[in-house]
Amino acid sequence: MSADEIQLARAFLMRVAEAPGVALGALVERVGPVAAAARVRGGDVPSGVRDETSAREGVELAEADLARAAEVGARLVVPEDPEWPSWPLLCLANARNRGLRWAGPPLGLWVRGAVSLDEVLQRSVAIVGARAATPYGETVAAEFAYDLVQAGAAIVSGAAFGIDSAAHRGALAAGGTTIAVLACGVDISYPTAHTTLLQRIAETGAVVSEYPPGTSPARFRFLVRNRLIAALAQGTVVVEAGARSGARNTASSAAALGKPLLAVPGPVNSTMSQGCHDLLRSGTAQVATSSATVLEAIGAIGELASPENAPERPSDRLGDAAVRVLDALSPREPRLVDAISRDSGVPLDRVRALLPELELMGLTRSGEEGWLGPKR
Amino acid sequence: MSADEIQLARAFLMRVAEAPGVALGALVERVGPVAAAARVRGGDVPSGVRDETSAREGVELAEADLARAAEVGARLVVPEDPEWPSWPLLCLANARNRGLRWAGPPLGLWVRGAVSLDEVLQRSVAIVGARAATPYGETVAAEFAYDLVQAGAAIVSGAAFGIDSAAHRGALAAGGTTIAVLACGVDISYPTAHTTLLQRIAETGAVVSEYPPGTSPARFRFLVRNRLIAALAQGTVVVEAGARSGARNTASSAAALGKPLLAVPGPVNSTMSQGCHDLLRSGTAQVATSSATVLEAIGAIGELASPENAPERPSDRLGDAAVRVLDALSPREPRLVDAISRDSGVPLDRVRALLPELELMGLTRSGEEGWLGPKR
Repeated sequence: MSADEIQLARAFLMRVAEAPGVALGALVERVGPVAAAARVRGGDVPSGVRDETSAREGVELAEADLARAAEVGARLVVPEDPEWPSWPLLCLANARNRGLRWAGPPLGLWVRGAVSLDEVLQRSVAIVGARAATPYGETVAAEFAYDLVQAGAAIVSGAAFGIDSAAHRGALAAGGTTIAVLACGVDISYPTAHTTLLQRIAETGAVVSEYPPGTSPARFRFLVRNRLIAALAQGTVVVEAGARSGARNTASSAAALGKPLLAVPGPVNSTMSQGCHDLLRSGTAQVATSSATVLEAIGAIGELASPENAPERPSDRLGDAAVRVLDALSPREPRLVDAISRDSGVPLDRVRALLPELELMGLTRSGEEGWLGPKR
Repeated sequence: MSADEIQLARAFLMRVAEAPGVALGALVERVGPVAAAARVRGGDVPSGVRDETSAREGVELAEADLARAAEVGARLVVPEDPEWPSWPLLCLANARNRGLRWAGPPLGLWVRGAVSLDEVLQRSVAIVGARAATPYGETVAAEFAYDLVQAGAAIVSGAAFGIDSAAHRGALAAGGTTIAVLACGVDISYPTAHTTLLQRIAETGAVVSEYPPGTSPARFRFLVRNRLIAALAQGTVVVEAGARSGARNTASSAAALGKPLLAVPGPVNSTMSQGCHDLLRSGTAQVATSSATVLEAIGAIGELASPENAPERPSDRLGDAAVRVLDALSPREPRLVDAISRDSGVPLDRVRALLPELELMGLTRSGEEGWLGPKR
């Protein structure tokens, strides 16, 4: 079986059934793409496959699709290729059992861009979110993408308005690799306003789709596409999402696939953060406050997030009595030890012992008229 | 033993040891306040109690303190009184074992305000947070307090600038009860700018402190006071908190006391939300996005929070095939069934069966030239 024959067979099958063709995928798995294509053409298929393929019976566009892809600098990557991202996509094989409505791995991926898919996805984070994002959400998405790229990750997203494009742009700004997964053909710029953005993504990263060239976007295809974003990346970050949204759909895909899912908190009075807060409240997602927290959750990629705490102060390790003695001191008016003892409630001999210790730590000063506290 | 004798004994003891005097508390528990006071005066006490009381030996201000309290309309509430909040304070008795640094219940509470402590605390929420709060945090604190009061809860806080005062004001605005727990005497207005606020709180709620009248606030006393806020309320909400802050201190007290702790998320680039996000990341706090989520977490008070989801759309329950058929329809250009079948990949007979069903749901319209989709 030559590589060309396999490509032609898979291109034919990807056209004849709407993705994800689960029954068709199972047939291909069993008999191989070339035999499966022959059986579909001959009508010699189980009823499930017939249901998936009958509507487009006789549609023979494999050569035209491959030619059209070549025109826009795209290629068809198939499971038989070394660069096929087998490991990330494995999770889709049995995902239907995990409550994922649109499961099933793609029969192939149309790819516009020179990167090796398998390689770039080994360290990858999906950043997704609302199209009607707020400036806050777009800033966070761009910053997270910028930082994650600098930590060596590729950014996967959906090229939509709002969070998606902010994530792609943040990755590009850092000179990193970003992958746009589309719900239409890779030859179609959707939304049209993102023609240049998609061009830039393809130049350094990849524009990817399981839909044949020329396929127009449709609501159903966005939902199917979302499972692919979740599957391809090692983990997913939802930056902003309304209570019901495509971003939440991607989020539940990631959760159903057993991949790390994070959500960025935001103002509680912002409807665009409501979906994120719902995911956090239900325990579906972990809290993402920085790229470091994302790396920590995804684990395989990187090091632990720093605790995000302010540095320790010298007074942090003092005992109760020392803290109370310090409280009883004034930075300007010198005080005598018996007054310090009475105010703090600390016994006189303890006060006498503590004051020189605190002086050594630079927290008190003694003078002729008594003891002074630290300057505030 | 008369009530007056008990009051005088406890007022004496609350003055002679800095709160929380854990050893002294144990002695009072064992022999009663009047005998404990006699033994402190006679020097007949265990060494732990001596350490706590020696610095203020001979300080006899009980009568003066009670007189000063009466002058500002305050009274001393003691564990022997029916209105003593025994149940909330029970958690402080063994709290040292739970990692709370300043445990031990108060020996009494100075109360300015006519409400019965026990009664109002039965439905109560502490709202605490940063003094250097942002407008976002203050708005959220005031709104939560307003809503919680309307749900029948009293609001407990610390009368500080920022979140605390926003919470008190929100409660007052809703005509509700609010309790300010101070780190100084109830006759002292701290901060001075809150003199009128504290006056208003005392008129309808209560200003409470375990410190004798005239005691000035001190850093150590704020930490001790924070345990009391956490103990008195049924649950605590942190609205904004820096990475290190008094609010986080109250939060860890609430957690150590085993009481529900919630934190309000905010912008990840706001340092004032960092403490809240740390509490959420570590799993110490639950997510609070509304008063309803607070009521749900505190449970004893109220009903379940509504799921905060948008209403279901008629298309939500459609099967995959129906969604794909709808996607293939246009609201303006009528389409024929075979074109719909080809575009959607749904078999022709399924399309023919689905279209009239969708029409009954008001999602499609049929005309002479074909089928139309729903108006977008």
